[in-house]
Amino acid sequence: MDKITMAHGSGGEETSRLIRDIFAKYLNNPYLDQMEDSTIVPGNPEGSKELAVTTDSFVVTPYFYPGGNIGRLAVCGTVNDILMSGAIPRFITLGVILEEGLPIADLEKIVASVADTAREAGLLVVAGDTKVVENHSGPDGGILINTTGIGFLRKDSPRLLSSSIRAGDKVIVSGCMGDHHAAILGRRMQINNDIVSDNAPLCGMVNALMNSGIRVHELRDVTRGGLATVLHEFAMASSRVITLEEDAIPVSAAVQSFAGILGLDPLYMGNEGKLVAIVAGEDAELALELIRNSPYGEAAAIIGEVSDPLEREASAPPDAAHEDEQGVSRGALILRTWIGGERVLGPLYGEGLPRIC
Amino acid sequence: MDKITMAHGSGGEETSRLIRDIFAKYLNNPYLDQMEDSTIVPGNPEGSKELAVTTDSFVVTPYFYPGGNIGRLAVCGTVNDILMSGAIPRFITLGVILEEGLPIADLEKIVASVADTAREAGLLVVAGDTKVVENHSGPDGGILINTTGIGFLRKDSPRLLSSSIRAGDKVIVSGCMGDHHAAILGRRMQINNDIVSDNAPLCGMVNALMNSGIRVHELRDVTRGGLATVLHEFAMASSRVITLEEDAIPVSAAVQSFAGILGLDPLYMGNEGKLVAIVAGEDAELALELIRNSPYGEAAAIIGEVSDPLEREASAPPDAAHEDEQGVSRGALILRTWIGGERVLGPLYGEGLPRIC
Repeated sequence: MDKITMAHGSGGEETSRLIRDIFAKYLNNPYLDQMEDSTIVPGNPEGSKELAVTTDSFVVTPYFYPGGNIGRLAVCGTVNDILMSGAIPRFITLGVILEEGLPIADLEKIVASVADTAREAGLLVVAGDTKVVENHSGPDGGILINTTGIGFLRKDSPRLLSSSIRAGDKVIVSGCMGDHHAAILGRRMQINNDIVSDNAPLCGMVNALMNSGIRVHELRDVTRGGLATVLHEFAMASSRVITLEEDAIPVSAAVQSFAGILGLDPLYMGNEGKLVAIVAGEDAELALELIRNSPYGEAAAIIGEVSDPLEREASAPPDAAHEDEQGVSRGALILRTWIGGERVLGPLYGEGLPRIC
Repeated sequence: MDKITMAHGSGGEETSRLIRDIFAKYLNNPYLDQMEDSTIVPGNPEGSKELAVTTDSFVVTPYFYPGGNIGRLAVCGTVNDILMSGAIPRFITLGVILEEGLPIADLEKIVASVADTAREAGLLVVAGDTKVVENHSGPDGGILINTTGIGFLRKDSPRLLSSSIRAGDKVIVSGCMGDHHAAILGRRMQINNDIVSDNAPLCGMVNALMNSGIRVHELRDVTRGGLATVLHEFAMASSRVITLEEDAIPVSAAVQSFAGILGLDPLYMGNEGKLVAIVAGEDAELALELIRNSPYGEAAAIIGEVSDPLEREASAPPDAAHEDEQGVSRGALILRTWIGGERVLGPLYGEGLPRIC
C-alpha cells in the first residue's frame, strides 16, 4: 500500500502531487483553487462588521474510531466553537501534519470525511498546509490536524458571554454525556459494544436558537473536561450558583454502564457533538423544543438552573459560595444528587483521557 | 526543571493554569482576553470587503536554532504568506501541540518570541489552542505549532496572481538565498559557523512596494523548495519563460561555501525571510531601491527577466518551452550560468531537508 514519505513534506514536486491527488480532489472550491499562499475570500456576507475566529488542533488516537474519524472531528470541533459565539461558520483552514508511513488510503478517507462534514456544516475549506514528520506510531504513521474557523456574526446579534448569565436562567444540555470519550476509550481497550462517538456539527440547533428570538445568554460545546468543567467555568465567570439535577442529566444506558465499570464520571467525560445552553428561564421550554427538533438534539434536557449565591446562602453547603481561589468570585457549581444530597463540583483535575480529541 | 505533562492537555485545571501563566502572560490583548471558544474581532478596518486567509504548520527541529526559534518562525511564515497576497496581516491564531517532557522554560521562551514577532509585524494573536501528545523527541519533548493568519486587502488593491506575469517583467529577490536551510542543517550537524536563519516578517518591504504605485504582478516568499521551485511554478502558471542570471543571485559567502562542501544548490535551499517579486520592467529599479531600504532587504537584487516563449524559441534549448507534463503550458525556468551556458530548472524533487520549517 502506498504510504506517506518524508518527500511528501518537501514543498517540491511530491508535495504538489499529494495536494493535487488527495486534497484538491475532495476539497476543491473556487477559493481553495486559487492555490496561492493565501486565499482571498469575501469579508462580510452577513452584513456584520465582525468576525468570529477560532483554532483547534486534533491529536485523537486512533484516527478511525466508532462513529467517526479525525477528519470529521477536526471540522466539527472548530465549527462548533464558531457556533458557540453565535456566529455563522463560513470558512475553515486545514493544516495536516502527517507521520511518515501513514497509508495514503487512510489519508484519503480522512480528507473525504473533512469534505463531507464541511458540506454538512455549510462551509468551505479555503486554505491548507501539509507537513511530514518522522514516524512514532508503529508500522503505520499517524496524523495530526489543525483547523481554524472563521464565521460571521449576525447583524445586531447579541454577544454570548458568561457575564450575561443571570439568576433564573435555565441550563439545557443537547444530548447524552460521555459518548465520544467512551467510544475512544472502548476502541483503545478493544471492547466490542454499541457506543459510537457523537462527533457532529451543531449548526441546526444553534441556528434554530439564534433565529428564534430566544434569550440565549451563553452557549458552549461540551468537549475535553466534560460538562462539569464547562459549567464550573460559567459559574466562576458569572459569579452565579449553577445547580444541576443529577437525575435530569442524559447519559445513555451503554455509557452509564461502561463508565460505572471503569469508575468514570460522565460529568467529566468528553463529547464532540453536544452543547450546553444557558437561556432565560421563561424561554427554556421553547429552547428545549427547538433543540429536540434539530439534528443531533433528540435527547436534549433541561438539567439545572442559575441562582444568585446570596439568595441560596442559608441552604448551600458552607464552602459553596467561597470556592474560587481568588476569594472574589462567589460562583459555584452544585450537583443535587438523585438521593437528594448536594455536592460541590470543581473543574477536571489531572489527565482526563489523553488524546481524546 | 518543570516539564509539560499529559495533564496540561486535559482541558481541565492544568490546561487553564498553563494558558494563564504562559500564553496569556505574553500574548494578552483585548481580543484574546475574551477567553471564549471563539474570538470576536473587527471585520474590515481597511475598508476592503475581502479577507486574505492562510494556514501553516511548523515542525522545525531543533526548535531553537541560530538566529531564531519555532515561535518566531511560526509568526513569520504566516505573516509572509498573508503579505504575498498584497493584504495587510492583522490577526493570527496559535495552535500548539506539545510533547510530554517539553521544559516549560523552553515553551515560555517560544511564546515570548511569538509575542515579540507579532508585535514587530503589527498583528495580534486572537485565538489559541493547546494539546499534549506523548514524547518522541528524547529526554526533552518537542513542539509543533500551527498559525493561521487573517489579513485585509487594501481597498482597490490589485490581485497578485501568477497569470498577471508578463514578458518584460523583472524578477527581484529580496536577499541572500539559503540562510535558513544552512542554519538548521549546520545546527543539526553541530557545525560552528556564523550562519543564522533569516526568519523575519517582511511587512516593511511589502508595504513599501504596495503603497508606491509600482506595478507588482506577483509576490511569493521563498521557503521550502527554494527559489527555483517558486519560479518554476510561476513560469508554469503564467506560461512564460523566466530567465535567471546565476551571477546576479545573492548568496552569502558563508552559505556558498557551506553548500559547496555538502553539494547543495542554494537555488533549492529554503529561506524564511525572503521574497521574490515580479514587477513591470520599467518599475524594477524603483522597486529594488524600496526593498533595499526596507528592513531585511539590504542585499536585494534584480536577478532575471520574463519573456514570451515564442520570442525566445530560436535561442532557447529545444526542450525549454515544452517542459510541462501536460504539454499545454509553454512556460519554462532557465538559468543562465556564470560561464554563459543555459540550464533548464525544474521544481525540487525528493526530500529536501526534512523538518526545515
